[in-house]
Amino acid sequence: MQVKRRVIIMKKIINDPQKVVEEMLEGIQAANPDVCYIENMGVIARRTKTGRVGVVSGGGSGHEPMHAGYVGEGMLDAAVSGNVFASPDPERILAGIKAADSGKGVLLIITNYSGDCMNFSMAAELANMEGISTASVIVRDDVSVKDSTTSTGRRGIAGTILVHKVAGAAAAAGHSLEEVRRLAQKAADNVRTMGMAMSSCTIPAIGRPGFELADDEVELGMGIHGEPGVKRVKLMSAKETARVLLSRILNDLKETGSEFALMVNGLGGTPLMELYILNREAHIFLKSMGVKIHETFVGNYITSLEMAGCSLTLMRLDEEMKPLLEAPCDTMAWKRRA
Amino acid sequence: MQVKRRVIIMKKIINDPQKVVEEMLEGIQAANPDVCYIENMGVIARRTKTGRVGVVSGGGSGHEPMHAGYVGEGMLDAAVSGNVFASPDPERILAGIKAADSGKGVLLIITNYSGDCMNFSMAAELANMEGISTASVIVRDDVSVKDSTTSTGRRGIAGTILVHKVAGAAAAAGHSLEEVRRLAQKAADNVRTMGMAMSSCTIPAIGRPGFELADDEVELGMGIHGEPGVKRVKLMSAKETARVLLSRILNDLKETGSEFALMVNGLGGTPLMELYILNREAHIFLKSMGVKIHETFVGNYITSLEMAGCSLTLMRLDEEMKPLLEAPCDTMAWKRRA
Repeated sequence: MQVKRRVIIMKKIINDPQKVVEEMLEGIQAANPDVCYIENMGVIARRTKTGRVGVVSGGGSGHEPMHAGYVGEGMLDAAVSGNVFASPDPERILAGIKAADSGKGVLLIITNYSGDCMNFSMAAELANMEGISTASVIVRDDVSVKDSTTSTGRRGIAGTILVHKVAGAAAAAGHSLEEVRRLAQKAADNVRTMGMAMSSCTIPAIGRPGFELADDEVELGMGIHGEPGVKRVKLMSAKETARVLLSRILNDLKETGSEFALMVNGLGGTPLMELYILNREAHIFLKSMGVKIHETFVGNYITSLEMAGCSLTLMRLDEEMKPLLEAPCDTMAWKRRA
Repeated sequence: MQVKRRVIIMKKIINDPQKVVEEMLEGIQAANPDVCYIENMGVIARRTKTGRVGVVSGGGSGHEPMHAGYVGEGMLDAAVSGNVFASPDPERILAGIKAADSGKGVLLIITNYSGDCMNFSMAAELANMEGISTASVIVRDDVSVKDSTTSTGRRGIAGTILVHKVAGAAAAAGHSLEEVRRLAQKAADNVRTMGMAMSSCTIPAIGRPGFELADDEVELGMGIHGEPGVKRVKLMSAKETARVLLSRILNDLKETGSEFALMVNGLGGTPLMELYILNREAHIFLKSMGVKIHETFVGNYITSLEMAGCSLTLMRLDEEMKPLLEAPCDTMAWKRRA
């Protein structure tokens, strides 16, 4: 007897599921004359060397605009893309480091996933063997889980973008590698994020959603690769979402007397309308808690393909951090005028 | 006997479905210190008057960042939001015109939908009665259908954003109302768009998707409110999508000797990865047709809530249009450095 199977058709604007990363990077290069794509290496790099400390980040693809969208003046000098949700190998990262190096050393901004930590560490050794100095900052902003299926310790998520901004501004200011590292580390130490997922996403090479959530269910603290979070709860209002996510962040920060940057991030499939409604609730809640917001960012900064959901990030600011956050930058995904 | 119904739960980060527009606009104001929200009027306006010709646009909500995201230096002075997918009434538009007026007159950029045309026209009369000069440009860039269920003649879609950019730059340059109108009209006359929808979206106040598409089906030329397009076809590759949409645009333009701006727009639920892959294919196809691309824009410029899909836009450029497109601007959704 013949078994009839339902053919699952993946509804994406792609050609070959095996070539999505390569074709995407070519598409980025076609859109942005200031960057070049280093073929077979998954690297998007600035076309011109800056003569300053280089800043490099990278990781699995599928989180666009992170990281390739942040290559440009005042942020990254190179971004290294692995396959979808898979860390790039050390050889690729080395190519990114070389592209970013102007002889003043290169800072590596690493999201805390086991694969990224291992591969960036190996790439740093390879670079050092070739005479390129490197320093590293590991971002661990996700307050939802202590360890995860993909990391020892907290994962790095949306806070990474603010670390990119601070590090890029510090490098653009002409600081030394050690000083750029110190400032990026300070940004990383002061940033906290928590997210919430409402739907799954489909990795092109797999062709079906990574998990299922019930129609009335969301997962608190789910990772940006669909890794398990804290718990599944019933769908919440925007007000409740802001309260739940921010309470956990504030508990972790332990103090609320400083000024903060707020990032309201969409995971890819959530419309801006909802992010702005969530932003309204975040401001109302934070005000009720006496927390002062210096600046707010709302948009899709780090995504999980077409996943619906959000994350909220707070970064503690001081007089050293503010001008770095406010410094001009010119990348596809984040532009800021002087 | 009791009839059991399946309760459809709308998975959105909102509070009250009836208040999404108001709460969204409050959220925009909370995110952007350069704009203010005029309560009960759906207006987002610049906080400071420019002393120059004002530029105003507006329409139904649900297309964010259009229009409120484009309020700021070098683009719009005010944006007027109606309910989701519903034109704002004349009184609201009048409030937007007043907010934008610095005594030099106000240009109205209108997308060609019957409701918008009627309401903006009435608002212009009201403004004129109060001594404010207005001029209008109607955008009709959608080449897919001649008339539609919501318009007489072609609909206005993603090309509108490029008209906003040109008009805003012309106003910022200090031109007269008539000259700003002429330049905006020229932009509108030279822009063509065609879109493709892959999934429906859900209007919050309705609570269920507006239409259904089969798993392997897309609709060519579907409107940004889900209005019928040209036809439903089987899911296409990125290459085929670029070819089908751009062929129709090029046929309509009739000439390919000029330089063009290309916009690859996502409808809200389509990841950037896919838009960049589509951009790659658009560049390859246009090159094969001998069409020269002066500049490329990729992102979610005008959306339909969480709808998956895309549109491609070409705007013919000349030496008058290029500097207006390249002029600096500083809005939430489009920033450009000098």
